[in-house]
Amino acid sequence: MAIRLNSAYLDGFVSEADFEAMAPAMREVCAKLANGTGAGNDYIGWRDLPVDYDKEEFARIKAAARRIRETSDVLVVIGIGGSYLGARAVIEMLGSQFFNEFSPLKVYFAGNNISGDYLNHILKLCEGKRLSVNVVSKSGTTTEPALAFRVFKKLLEDRYGKEEAAKRIYATTDRARGTLKSLADAAGYETFVIPDDVGGRYSVLTAVGLLPIAAAGFDIDKLMLGAQTARSQFSNDLPDNPVNRYAMARNILYNQGKRVETLSCFEPAFTLFAEWWKELYGESEGKDKKGLMPTSVIFSTDLHSMGQYIQDGSRVLFETFVAFQNPASDFTVAEEPGDFDGLNYLGGRTMSFVNKNAQSGTILAHVEGGVPCMVVEADRIDEQNIGELIYFFERSCAVSGYLLGINPFNQPGVESYKRNMFALLGKPGFEKEREQLIQKIK
Amino acid sequence: MAIRLNSAYLDGFVSEADFEAMAPAMREVCAKLANGTGAGNDYIGWRDLPVDYDKEEFARIKAAARRIRETSDVLVVIGIGGSYLGARAVIEMLGSQFFNEFSPLKVYFAGNNISGDYLNHILKLCEGKRLSVNVVSKSGTTTEPALAFRVFKKLLEDRYGKEEAAKRIYATTDRARGTLKSLADAAGYETFVIPDDVGGRYSVLTAVGLLPIAAAGFDIDKLMLGAQTARSQFSNDLPDNPVNRYAMARNILYNQGKRVETLSCFEPAFTLFAEWWKELYGESEGKDKKGLMPTSVIFSTDLHSMGQYIQDGSRVLFETFVAFQNPASDFTVAEEPGDFDGLNYLGGRTMSFVNKNAQSGTILAHVEGGVPCMVVEADRIDEQNIGELIYFFERSCAVSGYLLGINPFNQPGVESYKRNMFALLGKPGFEKEREQLIQKIK
Repeated sequence: MAIRLNSAYLDGFVSEADFEAMAPAMREVCAKLANGTGAGNDYIGWRDLPVDYDKEEFARIKAAARRIRETSDVLVVIGIGGSYLGARAVIEMLGSQFFNEFSPLKVYFAGNNISGDYLNHILKLCEGKRLSVNVVSKSGTTTEPALAFRVFKKLLEDRYGKEEAAKRIYATTDRARGTLKSLADAAGYETFVIPDDVGGRYSVLTAVGLLPIAAAGFDIDKLMLGAQTARSQFSNDLPDNPVNRYAMARNILYNQGKRVETLSCFEPAFTLFAEWWKELYGESEGKDKKGLMPTSVIFSTDLHSMGQYIQDGSRVLFETFVAFQNPASDFTVAEEPGDFDGLNYLGGRTMSFVNKNAQSGTILAHVEGGVPCMVVEADRIDEQNIGELIYFFERSCAVSGYLLGINPFNQPGVESYKRNMFALLGKPGFEKEREQLIQKIK
Repeated sequence: MAIRLNSAYLDGFVSEADFEAMAPAMREVCAKLANGTGAGNDYIGWRDLPVDYDKEEFARIKAAARRIRETSDVLVVIGIGGSYLGARAVIEMLGSQFFNEFSPLKVYFAGNNISGDYLNHILKLCEGKRLSVNVVSKSGTTTEPALAFRVFKKLLEDRYGKEEAAKRIYATTDRARGTLKSLADAAGYETFVIPDDVGGRYSVLTAVGLLPIAAAGFDIDKLMLGAQTARSQFSNDLPDNPVNRYAMARNILYNQGKRVETLSCFEPAFTLFAEWWKELYGESEGKDKKGLMPTSVIFSTDLHSMGQYIQDGSRVLFETFVAFQNPASDFTVAEEPGDFDGLNYLGGRTMSFVNKNAQSGTILAHVEGGVPCMVVEADRIDEQNIGELIYFFERSCAVSGYLLGINPFNQPGVESYKRNMFALLGKPGFEKEREQLIQKIK
């Protein structure tokens, strides 16, 4: 059974009439998506990716993953934004936040910030370890990953010599153009393709995500199978299609004045997946002074931190829970002679039983507090369900963004900090902006 | 030099006249804080904690920390909300997110969620390791930590026998009352005190935070010294006191209609400190349908995820940067023959130079995009500066909460999910609520 959406907790906030009123717009949007006639339609390659992908490259990804596992103790994945978040999210969801403490191959993510201290820590973790690097960049010139790749390229060449280093560098980049592609071809790195019609935040099911996920030891066939299932079930304009219903609910709530969506999950392993979701929705919809601000919490942890605010603070938010029917593993509460802590009423119960009831209790409390809630339900945390979730959220994001009236596939605002940064750093060609900006620094 | 606040980037959003208009209310609030006449004044023990703490217990904390380090490979800290966030935040800020991969003593946090899978992972990490446990709970009956403590108490007793287990369990709890205190006294655990007049989210500078931080190898004398510095500089009602100015700015922006504050930092090691800050502000102010929603980002990472939204999405937010003048460690960019990636213009520059200019560029871009910005400035990431930051944010939170017109020291909303959870779990005494709630589950 694929992903479900429980929207019953919207009662009192969103009516069936609200959904019916938005359905015609939703059908138009779905037609645009189907026909490729919407804004940004050069970037809807994600739509058919679960079936229409390069099978030869897919086999090469699996072979490279095996080679990395055989020859390395550490894989450093260099990329920023969509070039690392999806891979990191899937690895942590399947392997837990403690993945690197258990896995024979440790996976570290570099080049997603400009902290020298962070870089030093990663370098120290690579000392004395057999190392491979996967650099992920469409152009090869994005500052953060390019800076990190300089460092790791040199480290590999110093340690292994140029020839062996080239065998340990895997470049995921443009099919034909760009600095990284040229360098990879000249040096003889194995390359994988970031398709032209798939944007960064939609790229987890391309080599961008698949190579690190496979190297980490997870089954990318099942991941793709999940995405295929979701694609075949959700690519229609029916109003009770969970993808469409979630997209419509978001826009109905936005039109009512909600400005924040909080993604909530009762599994700590979900933490990074929520970060992937934030990029997907924040970068797709946050433009033209519009859009819901995506935020996330992990419960019950954050019920003791953000819980008070969600329960009773400014009523600007609604909440989307992601719930897994079955836990990855479970634990049974034991009886305690004397019952010193008063928990024997849970004796013989599983943690997942307690966790599920905590979730039901939380939803009822938040609804009572004035927070509209929805629940995205999956069966379990495994490759197939994650593949389904990825496609579910990707497609919903496209539908939702079109309903909002923006182009969900561009990100013009991301350039603003880059231009300022280049100017302030003295990059050639930015001399004029530099003059102006320096005046503005306070 | 203590913490500074750069509020110059509020120009165009908040005027000096706005600050002057709020100054009388701020002075009243500071008088209430000084006299202990405000709402929730039973919980203002944090105010004088940096000087007025139990010196004998402080020495015992340091001795216990030494003993834990000598006798253990792993310390499991069991607590939820304020009973773990502060310790975890400080340890990660000082030791990085990779702390456990470097430290001889690994520190894991349990009992802050109800995931059986998470618990299983922690248990596996303890296999074959010399283990100590610090259980942190005022009452001893909070479900999450109590469930975890049952498990770790049994593990220690099975492995070491009752007598040795008792030497490896450190209980941070109420001075005299409660389940955990009774159990600790009966079993002979060393105990530390959660003072009655310090709430959970304000407790990082009590034994709650200090024992794990000291056990992790950090200097708690310097941490307290930083808090003392901040206390002596910031405990006044002057309008240019950074504590008061930050609190006023937040309320001025809230009154203008902003509903979200985003805490931004260019150091990944800050990630968990932002979570501590979220509890502090969210739980203090998110009540009576009021308050700013605290959110956080780590840059430049999230400039490629939430950056688009912050730059150009719904204008409901303002941004507070936390900036460190000097990095914990630095890295110099090398020149590359051929300049394949076009980065040679940065050759010889440090990462911190690049990072700082990225921050300036980001602030200028966000201000240009309509986001009011402030910068909380500290010298470096070390114990003293973190002590200052903690006190700065604690005091500002109190001033800000009183300005908002709520009681910043209670958290009535946190009970809502608990009552529902107890009822749904079939806890004795909640039979009637159970009947009603089960009807509401959809």
